[in-house]
Amino acid sequence: MMIAYGIIGRKDAHEPRVGARVGERVVDLAQLSELGLMGKLSSEIFSTITLNPLIRQGLSFRKEVKRYVMEALANNVPGGIAEKAVYDIRSLKIYHPLHIGGFTDFYASKQHATNIGKIFRPQNPLLPNWQHLPIAYNGRASSVVTSGHNVKRPQGQILRGDSPQLDYTAKLDFEIELGIVIGKDSILGQPIPLSAANEYIFGVCLVNDWSARDIQAWEYQPLGPFTAKSFLTSISAFIVPLEELESYKVPAVVQDPAPLDYLKQPHPTSYDLEFELLLKTAANPYGVVLSRTNFKYMYWTMQQWITHHTVSGCNLQVGDLLASGTISGDTPDSLGSLMELTLNGTKPLQLANGEQRTFLEDGDEVIIRALAGGEEFLEVAGKVVR
Amino acid sequence: MMIAYGIIGRKDAHEPRVGARVGERVVDLAQLSELGLMGKLSSEIFSTITLNPLIRQGLSFRKEVKRYVMEALANNVPGGIAEKAVYDIRSLKIYHPLHIGGFTDFYASKQHATNIGKIFRPQNPLLPNWQHLPIAYNGRASSVVTSGHNVKRPQGQILRGDSPQLDYTAKLDFEIELGIVIGKDSILGQPIPLSAANEYIFGVCLVNDWSARDIQAWEYQPLGPFTAKSFLTSISAFIVPLEELESYKVPAVVQDPAPLDYLKQPHPTSYDLEFELLLKTAANPYGVVLSRTNFKYMYWTMQQWITHHTVSGCNLQVGDLLASGTISGDTPDSLGSLMELTLNGTKPLQLANGEQRTFLEDGDEVIIRALAGGEEFLEVAGKVVR
Repeated sequence: MMIAYGIIGRKDAHEPRVGARVGERVVDLAQLSELGLMGKLSSEIFSTITLNPLIRQGLSFRKEVKRYVMEALANNVPGGIAEKAVYDIRSLKIYHPLHIGGFTDFYASKQHATNIGKIFRPQNPLLPNWQHLPIAYNGRASSVVTSGHNVKRPQGQILRGDSPQLDYTAKLDFEIELGIVIGKDSILGQPIPLSAANEYIFGVCLVNDWSARDIQAWEYQPLGPFTAKSFLTSISAFIVPLEELESYKVPAVVQDPAPLDYLKQPHPTSYDLEFELLLKTAANPYGVVLSRTNFKYMYWTMQQWITHHTVSGCNLQVGDLLASGTISGDTPDSLGSLMELTLNGTKPLQLANGEQRTFLEDGDEVIIRALAGGEEFLEVAGKVVR
Repeated sequence: MMIAYGIIGRKDAHEPRVGARVGERVVDLAQLSELGLMGKLSSEIFSTITLNPLIRQGLSFRKEVKRYVMEALANNVPGGIAEKAVYDIRSLKIYHPLHIGGFTDFYASKQHATNIGKIFRPQNPLLPNWQHLPIAYNGRASSVVTSGHNVKRPQGQILRGDSPQLDYTAKLDFEIELGIVIGKDSILGQPIPLSAANEYIFGVCLVNDWSARDIQAWEYQPLGPFTAKSFLTSISAFIVPLEELESYKVPAVVQDPAPLDYLKQPHPTSYDLEFELLLKTAANPYGVVLSRTNFKYMYWTMQQWITHHTVSGCNLQVGDLLASGTISGDTPDSLGSLMELTLNGTKPLQLANGEQRTFLEDGDEVIIRALAGGEEFLEVAGKVVR
C-alpha cells in the first residue's frame, strides 16, 4: 500500500504534526518518535505545521521513515506500544500540508488545449508554440487551500453585451489536475537538466484549479488569467512521494514534432493514474460521476515541466507546487473541466433525478479522486457556497 | 528627509538586522534598542533576516521607531552613546529585505500598454479590457533579488524563421517600475474595498523587471509571460513607508471611461516621483541617462491595484510585492523600457563615444533611481553577465 504524508491534529489538543497515512490509518510520527519507535530520528522534524522540513530530508530519510511506519502498523496490536501512535483518519483534524512559495500551473494536456482552443478559435485550436514547449503561467500561492475548504463563489468583471459589470461568476468550473511538490531547492541562474529533474520532485498531490470562465474570458488578454483563478485552488491534504508510484509507470505519449534537445528524453515516462470526478448536488446527494480521465494522457512529462520552468534560470524551492493543468482524454466522458464537458455551457449535462448542469451551482460539492491500480490514494473535495 | 528600511549586516560579524536609512546614514535598530535608546521597543523585532516582522507592527509602531531614529541621528556626536548605532551606508553589507510570498506585476501605464500594443497590433493597440480593469499577472517571487545582484543573460526558446531554438536572449530589456509592499494580511474570500486599500500598503520600493523580449514573444500566448520574466526581478534594498511620501501626493490621471463602482475613487491620487534610468557601458563607464519618467503618469492607482487584486477573493499577505508594470510618459525620452525606446530594436539609441544600443549587452549596468522633490531616495542596480 502507498504511504502519503500530511499534517494532522489529534482531538486531544496536541499541536499539528506530520502524519503518515496508509489506507485509513495514520501514524502520528511525532508520537512514534517520542515513543522511541523511530530509532535515532528526532521528533523535531515531525512536530511542525508544514511538511517542508520533512521534504528537505530527501529520499533516504523517507525510506527510513517508511520502514518505521510499516513496523508500527505491523505491530499495532491492542495494548501494544505502537497503538499510541496509530489513528483512524476519521478521528483526526487535517491541516494544510505545505508552505508553498511558488505555484505554477502548466497546460500540458494536448486534448485540453485543443478543446479549449476549439471553443475560442475553431479554425486554429492549437497555437504554434504549444507543441514546442510546456506552456505554463504563475498561479497564486496564497490562495491554495486544502481539501474540504469551501469555494466561495467569486465576483469579478464580466462582459455583458458591450460593457463589463461586477457580478458573481455564472461560469464556475473545476479543473482536474495532478500537482508535483518540489523536494529540493535549485540554484537561481542554473537550469535543471532533464536527467536531474526527478531529484527535484518530492511527490504528487491532487489539484482542483477552480476557475471562473466568464471572468477569465474578459481579463486574460494579453497577460493570462488572474482574478479568474487566484480566488482559490484546492489540493489534497496528503502528498504521495514519487517513489511510491514506481509500479504505475508507463511510456509517455509520443511527442511529434520532437521537442528541442533540452526537452528530449531518451525514455519519456508517465504514470497510469486514474482520476474520477464526482459531483454531489441537491437532487443527487450521493453524487454523479462526470469524468474519468488519466494522467497518462499528458503530452508533456513532469521532468519537462521542471526543465522548462528553469531553462531561463528561474529557481525552484522546496514546497513549490507545479500543477499539470486540466487533464483531458480523447473521449467525451474523460474531459477534465465543465468548460469542455458542456462546450462552454452550450450543451448541459443531464444528471439523474431531472437535474442538469452547465457550470457549478451553489451547494454543489466536487470530489476528485485519484486511483492507482484501481485503488484510491488521494482525494480533494470542495463545496460551492455563496 | 525620508526614512527607509532595509536589512543590513555590519562588517564586525554581527547577524543581519533591520537598518533605518536616512540619506547616507543608517541606524542599526537592533543595536539602538540594545543601547537602551528605543524606550520599551524590544530588539527582537529588529534582529531578523527580513523586514516582515517590523512591517506587521503597523503604522503607530513605525512612528515610534522613527522618533527614536531621528533622536539618535540628532544626538550622534563623537563619543556619544548613539554613535554606536549609526553607520555610513557604504560600510554596511546589504541583504534582501523581504520575504515575498506573492509577486504581482500590473500593466498600469496607459502609455506603456499603448506603445507595446502598437508594436504588435498597430490598428488596435489598446485591448478592450485595458481601460476597465488594472491588468496584471502573477510573477515569480523566488527569483526576486536585491539591487546589486548580477543579471545572468537567460536562455530560452526563441523563434528563428519558422522554428524555435534554444538560445541566449538577444533582446534583454529592463522595465522601470514602482512596487508596493503589502503591510497587512487580508482574509481569503474577502475583497478589500478601495476605502480600506491604503491600510494594506506598508511602503514602496523600486523594481526592475528584467525581460527577454524574444523569449516573451514566442511563449506568451495564451497564458502570459513565464520564463521570459521569471529568471530575475530586482528590487531596491530599501523600502520607504507610504506615509513618507505624503507631501508628494498629486491628483491621479483622469480615467475615461469612468471605472466600475468598485474601482471608483472620490479623489484618486498618485505620487510625483521621478525615475531616472542610467546605463553604464564599456565606452560610457559614467553612464548615459536613457529615460526620465514619473509615477504620476500611471493610469491605475495603487488602491485600485489592491482592490482589483482581491475582488474575486484572493488574499494578500505581509511582504507581498505588487509592481506597477513599466512606467512610461508621453515623450520619447520618458519611456520605461528599451522595447519602447528602440521600437523593439528597430531604432537603435545613439549613446556617447560612438556606442549604440537596441537591447542590453553583456557588461552593461542598469541603474534606476527614484527621486522625490529632486532628491534621490531609492536605487536599484544590476549588471548583465553571461
